[in-house]
Amino acid sequence: MIIALDAMGGDAAPDEVVRGAYLALERSSARILLIGDEEKIHRCLSVGPHPPALDILHAPHAVGMGEIGPLALRKKKPSSLSVAIQQLAQGSVDAVVSAGNSAAIVATATHTLGLLQGVKRPALAAAVPSLHGHVLLADAGAHTQSNSLHLAQTLCLTLSYLRRRFGAEHPRVGLLNVGRESTKGPKVIRDAAALLTQASVPFEGFVEPHEIFSGEVDAVVCDGFLGNALLKLLEGVGEALRVSRTAAVGGKHGSWASRLAGAELSAAPLLGLGKPVLVAHGRSRAKEVANAVLAAEKLVESAVLQMMAEDTELIERLAALRSQDALWRLGRWSRRWRKTLSKAETDKGGGP
Amino acid sequence: MIIALDAMGGDAAPDEVVRGAYLALERSSARILLIGDEEKIHRCLSVGPHPPALDILHAPHAVGMGEIGPLALRKKKPSSLSVAIQQLAQGSVDAVVSAGNSAAIVATATHTLGLLQGVKRPALAAAVPSLHGHVLLADAGAHTQSNSLHLAQTLCLTLSYLRRRFGAEHPRVGLLNVGRESTKGPKVIRDAAALLTQASVPFEGFVEPHEIFSGEVDAVVCDGFLGNALLKLLEGVGEALRVSRTAAVGGKHGSWASRLAGAELSAAPLLGLGKPVLVAHGRSRAKEVANAVLAAEKLVESAVLQMMAEDTELIERLAALRSQDALWRLGRWSRRWRKTLSKAETDKGGGP
Repeated sequence: MIIALDAMGGDAAPDEVVRGAYLALERSSARILLIGDEEKIHRCLSVGPHPPALDILHAPHAVGMGEIGPLALRKKKPSSLSVAIQQLAQGSVDAVVSAGNSAAIVATATHTLGLLQGVKRPALAAAVPSLHGHVLLADAGAHTQSNSLHLAQTLCLTLSYLRRRFGAEHPRVGLLNVGRESTKGPKVIRDAAALLTQASVPFEGFVEPHEIFSGEVDAVVCDGFLGNALLKLLEGVGEALRVSRTAAVGGKHGSWASRLAGAELSAAPLLGLGKPVLVAHGRSRAKEVANAVLAAEKLVESAVLQMMAEDTELIERLAALRSQDALWRLGRWSRRWRKTLSKAETDKGGGP
Repeated sequence: MIIALDAMGGDAAPDEVVRGAYLALERSSARILLIGDEEKIHRCLSVGPHPPALDILHAPHAVGMGEIGPLALRKKKPSSLSVAIQQLAQGSVDAVVSAGNSAAIVATATHTLGLLQGVKRPALAAAVPSLHGHVLLADAGAHTQSNSLHLAQTLCLTLSYLRRRFGAEHPRVGLLNVGRESTKGPKVIRDAAALLTQASVPFEGFVEPHEIFSGEVDAVVCDGFLGNALLKLLEGVGEALRVSRTAAVGGKHGSWASRLAGAELSAAPLLGLGKPVLVAHGRSRAKEVANAVLAAEKLVESAVLQMMAEDTELIERLAALRSQDALWRLGRWSRRWRKTLSKAETDKGGGP
């Protein structure tokens, strides 16, 4: 198994990425292909003897953290990221891990690898510590804005992921909203709930953000802007717990705060692709990069993303329902217009 | 001073509201006017001797927690909430406190009391424990969707509130976004930043959610959906800290976690109105209701909301800039259309 690692992605690249590769190789049986500026990588490699399972592929250009995702795609010079994804598309590597610009990763992966049948967009699924383990948050930042079909499809992808990855028979997934009542929240979320109900998708209805940690649901679905904001707020909570030196004392779940405070910024897989692409946090240090590589290894071993390709029936049904709905709306409007027009004709007295 | 208290608003109304009134009167010199179903209030009043500073106004109807705000307004039967706001508009009371349906409170207050000069919408300003005190979050849920002008105006209202309420000479207020780079986040937030820069409003640019607690800013501004979601997530963090029995041990800011865990759900004032209306959390118990009444008393004493009426210059300038921008866009389009039309005329060979 070969994991491609984008050496130029992340705030501390390439130093921390190279150190992360070293760390990962200590615990992993996979080969790692470091993709990036060869000279810079070699300078970092002096930190230790060259491990035999480490290869390097030269790709000197990097995508900046502030670049706009789809624009990064159109560049003529291939970046370390685009080379990595290309390698994955060709089957030369089994997974890609990058801590770089997430918008660029999403755009490049979507464009180069394509999406599962019927899927409109991929979604990032990030794990957040809950009182009894973890809860998934999707979309954690792949796209900043979503329509109701995107939200509904992300929910189906999450259901499929929970089933295939953790063997959960009846995963409980809810739509994140600011109230449980059907009148609450933005229209797009209410429409997504209606679409899911119409397609008979087994979901838990609306879930409020304060219910995330209690373990009532296995995952919550929201648009990528909200997901990313919530994730970053939790990061801030973890930092504040560290700064205020809060320790967990006693209690059955005494370790929640310490888990949150010590939470390594875990890598999130992109759901909706047929091949594993993991987005690590931009601020990842060597330890987090290593964890991301190990997570990629597990994902490849379990062949989850490939198996998810068999679960696209619901996803296609959602898209069909949405199209039907759009057609029905169009039909209603055209009937109205026709009526108005014929009335105007009659009022004119028939004929010019 | 008379504080009107909506006895029928909140999940535990009227019991906890009446008990809250009792608690507040122990610590306050204001009179309290309980507005709601007289019979139900009297049933709760048996909890103790009738305090001399407590009055009751009969208004039997209540707004349900699931009702849509603007629809609640159109009801023929006056609710406890609409009677309370009416009393405030007439000047019979000095402030209104309600733990009821926040959308209904916002709609009724906006409609009955009107807004400050140039303000398009009111915003809820909620206080969140930071490492060094508190940080304000606005809008915390008055409206679920916002355009760039709403966001920019909320920022100005927050600046004015911080100046008038806490005497901060140079309050630091940022726009909440998922990145500091100007390319990050939804267009509406980037447009709001551009508008604020154009109007020379002193603001801190984009602030990320993980930076809220560090004390770098005094307030963050976002749309009401995100604000409400973040607030509820923090509530969930507080609950999880309580459940996992995490105690703060040592450290200079050792009390942050305990402050968050013990955070009474504080009431938020509606900024943008000329008179004090405070929205208490729907799940408020007696203690929180009492705190909301005391907060209302302080707000009345300091005459903050009245003084904010003098700070509307920036707010009006923002609206003017936005209109200019809209006019300019319209102009550009009409010039384009005219050009296309005259070209079509010329192509036809001039004349039919």
